[in-house]
Amino acid sequence: MEFKLKPIGIIHTPYKSMVEAPYQGKIAKDVCLIEVYKEYEDGLKDVEDCSHLILLYWLNKARRDTLLARPPHNHKIHGVFATRSPHRPNPIGFCIVKLLERKKNILKVKGLDAIDGTPLLDIKPYSPKFDYVPNAKVEWLEKAEKKC
Amino acid sequence: MEFKLKPIGIIHTPYKSMVEAPYQGKIAKDVCLIEVYKEYEDGLKDVEDCSHLILLYWLNKARRDTLLARPPHNHKIHGVFATRSPHRPNPIGFCIVKLLERKKNILKVKGLDAIDGTPLLDIKPYSPKFDYVPNAKVEWLEKAEKKC
Repeated sequence: MEFKLKPIGIIHTPYKSMVEAPYQGKIAKDVCLIEVYKEYEDGLKDVEDCSHLILLYWLNKARRDTLLARPPHNHKIHGVFATRSPHRPNPIGFCIVKLLERKKNILKVKGLDAIDGTPLLDIKPYSPKFDYVPNAKVEWLEKAEKKC
Repeated sequence: MEFKLKPIGIIHTPYKSMVEAPYQGKIAKDVCLIEVYKEYEDGLKDVEDCSHLILLYWLNKARRDTLLARPPHNHKIHGVFATRSPHRPNPIGFCIVKLLERKKNILKVKGLDAIDGTPLLDIKPYSPKFDYVPNAKVEWLEKAEKKC
C-alpha cells in the first residue's frame, strides 16, 4: 500500500543545508517565504485570519531507512518516533510558524527550520484551543536539558 | 513531482465513519489503539518517555479535489488551508494524543479523532517547548464561537 503526495508549493528560506538550518523552528529568527502554487491559491481564503500556521513539508534530504536517532540534546540513541529527527520512514516535517503577511499566493512567515527549496505539503491553522497540552513532557529531553 | 508514503501502522478507534468521529481530537474521550507494524517497532524506543504524541495519519476517506470548506463552527466558506477540514489536496491528519501505555508495538492513547482503520504515517514527541504558541488566534473561529 502506498499513498501519493503532491507538493502544493515551495518553501524559501536562508538555510541552504541541514547544518545551516536551526534545529527547531521555535528558535529561528529569519523571515521565510512560503510560495503556494497558483492552482492552490483558492485554498488560502481567510488564511490571514490565522496568527500562526502549522506547516507540513517534505524533508527531501532526509534518510528513510533508519529507525534510530541521536538528537543534538544528548548522546543517547532513541527511536526516531521518540525524537524530531528528520530521518524517519515518512519524512514529513512539521513546524508552527507566525504568519507575518499574505500577498496573494505568498506567505511571509517566521519560526521555520526548513531548508531552502523544501516542498510544501499542507497548511493548517494553529489554535492553542486544539493544539496545546500544558503539562506535556518528554522525559529524555528534560533530563538532557538539566545536564546542560 | 510526487512523493510516496508508506503506512507504518494502523489506527484502531471506535469511530466507524467521519460522522461518528469527534470533530477534534481534543474532545475525544475514548481510548484508542495505535498498532505500529512490527518492522517499525525499533523506532518506538523511549517513546514511553513522552506523555503526549503528535500523530500524522492518512485520511483515506477524504476528498482531495476541493480547496474550500464549510467548517462545523460557522456557515461561512473558508479556504481549506484556513481550516482543519479533512478534505484537502494532501489529506494528512494531525492530532496530539495522550500516551496511556505502551506494550511492545501497541500504543494505548486518548484524544484521537481518526476513523477506525486509518493508516498511520508518523509519530513525533509533543513538547510544549517547541509546539506551544500562547497567544495564537484564528479570527474566524473566535467570531464563530462568540456567536454560539
